[in-house]
Amino acid sequence: MDEATWHRRTEWPLVIASLAFLIAYSWRVIADLSGLARDVTTWILAVTWLLFICDYVVRLALARFRGAWFRRHLGALTFAVLPTLRLVLLLRVLTRIPGMRLSAGAALRTRIVVYGTGVAIVLIYLASLTVLDAERHAPGATIVTFGDAIWWSCVTVTTTGYGDLVPATDEGRLVGTGLMFVGVALSGVITATLASWIVERASRGGDDAEPATRGQVRELIAKVDALGEPVTGSERTEDPTTTPD
Amino acid sequence: MDEATWHRRTEWPLVIASLAFLIAYSWRVIADLSGLARDVTTWILAVTWLLFICDYVVRLALARFRGAWFRRHLGALTFAVLPTLRLVLLLRVLTRIPGMRLSAGAALRTRIVVYGTGVAIVLIYLASLTVLDAERHAPGATIVTFGDAIWWSCVTVTTTGYGDLVPATDEGRLVGTGLMFVGVALSGVITATLASWIVERASRGGDDAEPATRGQVRELIAKVDALGEPVTGSERTEDPTTTPD
Amino acid sequence: MDEATWHRRTEWPLVIASLAFLIAYSWRVIADLSGLARDVTTWILAVTWLLFICDYVVRLALARFRGAWFRRHLGALTFAVLPTLRLVLLLRVLTRIPGMRLSAGAALRTRIVVYGTGVAIVLIYLASLTVLDAERHAPGATIVTFGDAIWWSCVTVTTTGYGDLVPATDEGRLVGTGLMFVGVALSGVITATLASWIVERASRGGDDAEPATRGQVRELIAKVDALGEPVTGSERTEDPTTTPD
Amino acid sequence: MDEATWHRRTEWPLVIASLAFLIAYSWRVIADLSGLARDVTTWILAVTWLLFICDYVVRLALARFRGAWFRRHLGALTFAVLPTLRLVLLLRVLTRIPGMRLSAGAALRTRIVVYGTGVAIVLIYLASLTVLDAERHAPGATIVTFGDAIWWSCVTVTTTGYGDLVPATDEGRLVGTGLMFVGVALSGVITATLASWIVERASRGGDDAEPATRGQVRELIAKVDALGEPVTGSERTEDPTTTPD
Repeated sequence: MDEATWHRRTEWPLVIASLAFLIAYSWRVIADLSGLARDVTTWILAVTWLLFICDYVVRLALARFRGAWFRRHLGALTFAVLPTLRLVLLLRVLTRIPGMRLSAGAALRTRIVVYGTGVAIVLIYLASLTVLDAERHAPGATIVTFGDAIWWSCVTVTTTGYGDLVPATDEGRLVGTGLMFVGVALSGVITATLASWIVERASRGGDDAEPATRGQVRELIAKVDALGEPVTGSERTEDPTTTPD
Repeated sequence: MDEATWHRRTEWPLVIASLAFLIAYSWRVIADLSGLARDVTTWILAVTWLLFICDYVVRLALARFRGAWFRRHLGALTFAVLPTLRLVLLLRVLTRIPGMRLSAGAALRTRIVVYGTGVAIVLIYLASLTVLDAERHAPGATIVTFGDAIWWSCVTVTTTGYGDLVPATDEGRLVGTGLMFVGVALSGVITATLASWIVERASRGGDDAEPATRGQVRELIAKVDALGEPVTGSERTEDPTTTPD
Repeated sequence: MDEATWHRRTEWPLVIASLAFLIAYSWRVIADLSGLARDVTTWILAVTWLLFICDYVVRLALARFRGAWFRRHLGALTFAVLPTLRLVLLLRVLTRIPGMRLSAGAALRTRIVVYGTGVAIVLIYLASLTVLDAERHAPGATIVTFGDAIWWSCVTVTTTGYGDLVPATDEGRLVGTGLMFVGVALSGVITATLASWIVERASRGGDDAEPATRGQVRELIAKVDALGEPVTGSERTEDPTTTPD
Repeated sequence: MDEATWHRRTEWPLVIASLAFLIAYSWRVIADLSGLARDVTTWILAVTWLLFICDYVVRLALARFRGAWFRRHLGALTFAVLPTLRLVLLLRVLTRIPGMRLSAGAALRTRIVVYGTGVAIVLIYLASLTVLDAERHAPGATIVTFGDAIWWSCVTVTTTGYGDLVPATDEGRLVGTGLMFVGVALSGVITATLASWIVERASRGGDDAEPATRGQVRELIAKVDALGEPVTGSERTEDPTTTPD
């Protein structure tokens, strides 16, 4: 079995594993589980995480050119190593919904908006869970409810940083640092996408005002070539006719 | 009656309803109304809100292709569902003021600046009203005057977030979250518009240095075609003249 | 006397007036003047401010088409109405330093960087003076030294907003609001200038890989026209030579 | 010896000096050295700093056109004057790792990402060391551990600014101001790089849909010229043949 076949076949099982991970983690943190229930969620998280790591290892083993596959699938590595980010894979499924016919630019921007929004929502949600799990029972913690955690994540990802709620633990600070840089990157994505749209719209005139294409010039070169050949050809055939004269 | 006619006819009544909504809401919150006066503003808000929802439903019903109309008028849905955002419709009227002749890019940027400034002012104002209404009488609230609310909104929408004033209620936090993301989007719009302007200005040389247009190449192709035809034509007429020779 | 002559002649006196304004305002606020010295600076500020307003009114009166002049010189109006912003005019002088030969894009970006840096420095400095003047003797104020004011201005203009120092007066909050929005705009200018530079650099290949210019195609059209004319011309002169045959 | 030879030969020694500077400074601050160990690090820092200044002076002296060299190597001046920033030179070595074949735009963006990430990491690390050194023993300081310093640097460079940790000394505030502006610039670099990538991707069609190149048009002009010459030439040779008739 080759890597592509494996990837196609494991896609849906992995989506279900992602959902299991998400639900188990949400339940564990929001309900602040303890005892047996906490142990069960620990097992679910461990098993689903292991599934993703195995999937990555199998794909790497099945790939023909492992070096090239590794370099081209850095995203897959990220999904495999960080259990929280892996859920973004769900969005790949969401973006496959058939849409209207779009230009290359519009299609790219649509994908960026869908993925970007999805990544932002998933990361804010998971960061909220992780920070709440880390902070809740820490001494001097201010983030003690799920509402607090969501509010803090939004305040952090937009780099607003009121400072009313601040992580007190190292784990919370790590989540915060990640969220801030993700926020800077996401605001860059928003701005760049808008810039691409505005630049495209601003240059929109009639098709006649668009920059000439290479295709057009190739067509022209062919025409000029065709023009040159018969002319010199007919003159050559003319020359003999005139010489016998 | 078709959808376009309805839209033209209901435009001004809806602008007046928007203003009524804005004035009633401002009066209600800033004056911190109670008793009968509060009930009157509640009624005005409810009726104007209902007007917008009815307008949306009627337009959808009148549209020929409802699916296509729905996808193309997501903005109208936003205006209908969220009473506060609906006032941005006023700006549509403002941008119709006839201006100077502008290039496609300059016209787009002018519209973006006018709409963007308008959206920012309306959202900051409405967010200030909403947060003041939510916070004012809440225990432990710091946003207690209209001046506080405006200052907090500006601090939030620019993602500065001093933290001197922070919402204490869930409704206030919701308004804050909205404002932060709007702020990130607005700063993206500012940057992207500036980038479009700079890119356009930076590439400005003489017209001779601009990228060749498709129109120019089409003109050239036609010329080459015209050149090719009479030449071979005259050669054909020449051939018989030379053959009789 | 026409508007351009007036503008040339009043340029240097106004630069001196700007400097007088800046020095008087700096001295007044930093030294926390009182009594006679404060009155003297009040007079200097009032006179220099009046000079700028008079200059604007005279320029408007001298302009041929007042409507067009007004629309084209909104910057001059800003400089005339807001005394603090007027000092940015000094930068106009600074950017006239002759530099190296630059492409249109590089020249534009150089101007943006010089003006932008200048505007940022002037605004941060003036905002620091204004906020210090407003806050210093206010009850509950945290911005009480010039160092505090500069730090607060930098924290505000970059939209960092620690919240360790926060304006307590309405005037201070107004200055803060202005600084935040200026900060958003300036960060947009930085980003857009970088984007223009990167887009230009990214598309740089050999000159042969650059988009074809309109000038090139015009040269080509002229060549094709020249090619078409003599050919049909010589054929016409050939036709009579062959017909007598 | 010319400047280029000197630069090639001193490259590796300077990298080692940079590393020595970094290790000495890290050890000094993190271990909070005192007595002899502190004096030793002071000497290492002084000597390595002096090495860089000497290198700059020698390069300037060896340059043929000193004015032009000075203007073209403002970066080298920055590295020589500010000891902390000088370590960024290490990245120049890192970016020389041979990569895959990339388009001009992709190569530029790769360099920007590598350098940008490196500059960000070095600056955050050095700012953390400097602020910790300045704050640790200051009265009323909140940044007292290396973890605090790193967290504060990340909160500052992303312009989040919670305000839980704020510098209390002038030196700390100076570092903070630098970090904030670096943060604004870095987020601009991220956004601009993303914009360049999106604009390039958005305009990607087949090669035929790319803007026509100057090279193509030059090829075409040569073809048209070649077409014009033989035609008039053969007509000239035809003319004599017909005139003798």
